[in-house]
Amino acid sequence: MSSSTPIRVVVWGEDRHEQVNPVVRGIYPDGMHATIAAGVSALLGDDVTVATRVLDDPEHGMTEELLAETDVLLWWGHTAHEEVADEVVERIHRHVLEGMGIIVLHSGHHSKIFRRLMGTTCSLRWRNADDGELVWTVSPRHPIAEGVPQPIVIPGQEMYGEFFDVPEPDELVFVSSFTGGEVFRSGITYRRGYGKVFYFSPGDEVYPVYHHPDVQRVIANGVRWARSERARESYVVTPMYLAGDFGRPLLDRPDGSLVDYYTREPVTPGEARS
Amino acid sequence: MSSSTPIRVVVWGEDRHEQVNPVVRGIYPDGMHATIAAGVSALLGDDVTVATRVLDDPEHGMTEELLAETDVLLWWGHTAHEEVADEVVERIHRHVLEGMGIIVLHSGHHSKIFRRLMGTTCSLRWRNADDGELVWTVSPRHPIAEGVPQPIVIPGQEMYGEFFDVPEPDELVFVSSFTGGEVFRSGITYRRGYGKVFYFSPGDEVYPVYHHPDVQRVIANGVRWARSERARESYVVTPMYLAGDFGRPLLDRPDGSLVDYYTREPVTPGEARS
Amino acid sequence: MSSSTPIRVVVWGEDRHEQVNPVVRGIYPDGMHATIAAGVSALLGDDVTVATRVLDDPEHGMTEELLAETDVLLWWGHTAHEEVADEVVERIHRHVLEGMGIIVLHSGHHSKIFRRLMGTTCSLRWRNADDGELVWTVSPRHPIAEGVPQPIVIPGQEMYGEFFDVPEPDELVFVSSFTGGEVFRSGITYRRGYGKVFYFSPGDEVYPVYHHPDVQRVIANGVRWARSERARESYVVTPMYLAGDFGRPLLDRPDGSLVDYYTREPVTPGEARS
Amino acid sequence: MSSSTPIRVVVWGEDRHEQVNPVVRGIYPDGMHATIAAGVSALLGDDVTVATRVLDDPEHGMTEELLAETDVLLWWGHTAHEEVADEVVERIHRHVLEGMGIIVLHSGHHSKIFRRLMGTTCSLRWRNADDGELVWTVSPRHPIAEGVPQPIVIPGQEMYGEFFDVPEPDELVFVSSFTGGEVFRSGITYRRGYGKVFYFSPGDEVYPVYHHPDVQRVIANGVRWARSERARESYVVTPMYLAGDFGRPLLDRPDGSLVDYYTREPVTPGEARS
Repeated sequence: MSSSTPIRVVVWGEDRHEQVNPVVRGIYPDGMHATIAAGVSALLGDDVTVATRVLDDPEHGMTEELLAETDVLLWWGHTAHEEVADEVVERIHRHVLEGMGIIVLHSGHHSKIFRRLMGTTCSLRWRNADDGELVWTVSPRHPIAEGVPQPIVIPGQEMYGEFFDVPEPDELVFVSSFTGGEVFRSGITYRRGYGKVFYFSPGDEVYPVYHHPDVQRVIANGVRWARSERARESYVVTPMYLAGDFGRPLLDRPDGSLVDYYTREPVTPGEARS
Repeated sequence: MSSSTPIRVVVWGEDRHEQVNPVVRGIYPDGMHATIAAGVSALLGDDVTVATRVLDDPEHGMTEELLAETDVLLWWGHTAHEEVADEVVERIHRHVLEGMGIIVLHSGHHSKIFRRLMGTTCSLRWRNADDGELVWTVSPRHPIAEGVPQPIVIPGQEMYGEFFDVPEPDELVFVSSFTGGEVFRSGITYRRGYGKVFYFSPGDEVYPVYHHPDVQRVIANGVRWARSERARESYVVTPMYLAGDFGRPLLDRPDGSLVDYYTREPVTPGEARS
Repeated sequence: MSSSTPIRVVVWGEDRHEQVNPVVRGIYPDGMHATIAAGVSALLGDDVTVATRVLDDPEHGMTEELLAETDVLLWWGHTAHEEVADEVVERIHRHVLEGMGIIVLHSGHHSKIFRRLMGTTCSLRWRNADDGELVWTVSPRHPIAEGVPQPIVIPGQEMYGEFFDVPEPDELVFVSSFTGGEVFRSGITYRRGYGKVFYFSPGDEVYPVYHHPDVQRVIANGVRWARSERARESYVVTPMYLAGDFGRPLLDRPDGSLVDYYTREPVTPGEARS
Repeated sequence: MSSSTPIRVVVWGEDRHEQVNPVVRGIYPDGMHATIAAGVSALLGDDVTVATRVLDDPEHGMTEELLAETDVLLWWGHTAHEEVADEVVERIHRHVLEGMGIIVLHSGHHSKIFRRLMGTTCSLRWRNADDGELVWTVSPRHPIAEGVPQPIVIPGQEMYGEFFDVPEPDELVFVSSFTGGEVFRSGITYRRGYGKVFYFSPGDEVYPVYHHPDVQRVIANGVRWARSERARESYVVTPMYLAGDFGRPLLDRPDGSLVDYYTREPVTPGEARS
């Protein structure tokens, strides 16, 4: 396990709310993506290198060169999912299947990349009112749940509620409750190809959730978890074994006869199967 | 699907609280088990036959003859788990593995039979105070969730909270929230051998939960789900295939040689493998 | 369970091999899709109505009207996956998420619709040589495995081998072995939204696999399993709860104080939360 | 993650075959357990300390003191499962639930401890004849599958076949095929409480399987995987939250009224709920 090479992290943010909503800008002066990135850096220090990219960068910052050098991509999007170019989504998708880890945050549940990986609508119920959130760990020994209290208390948060239309998670790590009584499977993981996917729901733009130390801890744990320790690997092409490697299987019976492996009919070696 | 033969249901209750606690007797004058049984009968009519048994019956009512004729067993126990004879627990266990369905309710999480099937402590956190419970469906097309509102509202209930030390469920059907903010995986299913297991948590003895129409509906759905449509089948003995049926595998190579299937070394048919 | 209304089945086939390959035409004179459809009809009789559609039909036969009236869609494609219009794929996808069952067969693993539902490459290893296949049941009480021998013996078949790049199945029903020693997870199920997905691998066009009685039995079982007993339901839009339904949560403490639910700070009812 | 402290491994063997069967003694002169232990040591060097214990040791070697100092226990048993004292089995079980990893090998599938953790019969089909085994990886990025070929070729091995009566694995890592055509889910993992369980099937006593470098590699990978990085933790007792911490939940409505959280009936703060 290559604990010597830093995990190369990229935090992607839409950076649109920050431009137009003074409340958001007040909470996240450098943008949500910068706050998330700073949290990862602060907690993981020399174990990571962290960069950020935004929607309005060329190719949304998601160039082939960058992705080839990214171990874990964090994604926060909300109002502009449709502006992300399909070609870029396919590129990110391919990299995940080849081993890049991805952590999708909050309203990223409706991003093209998350919907592409899940194959479902990824829809849910929501409310922006007076809710707080309690994030409960239901898998206490999961590395993503390390070092956080039971529960994580987030005093102000947008409510996300079930039914959350995602495939049955490979692992359910967190379940949240909200002041209104709703529950939500708020920390879920999947494998897709050679890559790992972690979705973590807390994080509306009008709340300082990404400054919350326990939320930052979960995200840092997720970065460690999502990073693949092996090199990227492609599985797009369907390889074919050469038929000549094998041959017709027979059974050398105790009674001295030679029969076809499956049909049990007597054979003479060398005869072709019709 | 043998929808013509009724599902044979047995509801097992400890019937201890009812003897000593007037609050419980007031809510469940004939015993919790009788109320649960009446709910199943009322909802499933001619599709079921329902009997009840209690702890103080000979062999706790769980004779070989009865179990052999039971399609689905419902189990509610609380303070007297240790009084259930180990021999009876093994008998019930065997029947589940051979195809009998079992629905474990509320404090039955600590019953010997549920712990035997799960292999874990099945412990959880709890509180008896001023909580209400909301039971949310997270698998909306699951047959157990049919016909119940989202969420089921239970105004008074004992709180059960995570971490619930059970194996990862095969299926997660319900997640509950409580007034105090806790969450709990309240409806979970497992396969064990040829049998099905459904655990459903609502149901403390000092609340009228088993009179609740939505709780009765879930239990009735569970009875339908847990019933096996095939006959009982035993898998205790490890059967052995006769070696002589097979023989030594060879490959009849395209180049005309005969080689051992695995080692690829040339062979002469009829030679024994050393 | 609406056993009175027949399951409306549509079998979709590419119908290209049949046009150009006399071997295929010899085995499947009316097309693979017709043979598969005939098998379903023969086994399920009045419990189904079965239609077929092919790639070269207008809109590939997958019109909105037809899909709205289809309970279970069976899909066999191979060389022309890319010719299926994206718009039609999205339409089929939407219907699955809304409750239509889908059974994907053999080389359909690389169809656009299966890849859309899975989110992975769905690639695998293969060989067309002298293999036979044994299909072993690893979930003996699964309805899809009902009434078939252990194992199903298919004397001639194309080899499919691991690693099969699909998400971890919700249920693993069959695992196959091939003469060359490969294994393959050949019967897998998933839930996607309100719909069910079953992938079953046996079935290359140059073998008479769809005439095989056990293969037909599995497909018929799959049709029963995949059909949803509830009406179609859409979950594309994210509904919002009205904030005014709730209010600010407080706790009425035993000591007589009123505090905010989450922060535990004293409050005066009626004060807005800043 | 404490990569500095060595993983404390104990390999438990029945050591009965070795006493009475010269074939076994020839392959494993110091006992199977010693060979397995040597393999772990050779591959993991200073990252482990390895000890062995056998059935005929006092308390079968499984004292409270030893288990408290064991991170990962490996278990090979065959003909004498019933001789393992129930009290010792409960002790091992408790340690697994508290965080000790356990790797169960081959015929250990019928050990008391594995059956206790699984809750099923753990039965399977078998044959001792002329089979070889191919162990295929179906989860290529799983740490247990690191560094082994696809497939692992084991020229001589006892056949294990499905149906393997275990709960649905949390993770399926390996699937094997045998010369006779059988398949078997040969590498499976589970979480139980705070501990991890890995079952790996290759390894009959009359074959030199535990000398096989790829089998040794899998076992070493399993040791790393099964070791918990957190301290032992007990969850036997069901803790109770003090009711007084909470209070009666109310909602401070926008219209100025105060209502009960669940019933929505108007309340006066301080009134007890009846």
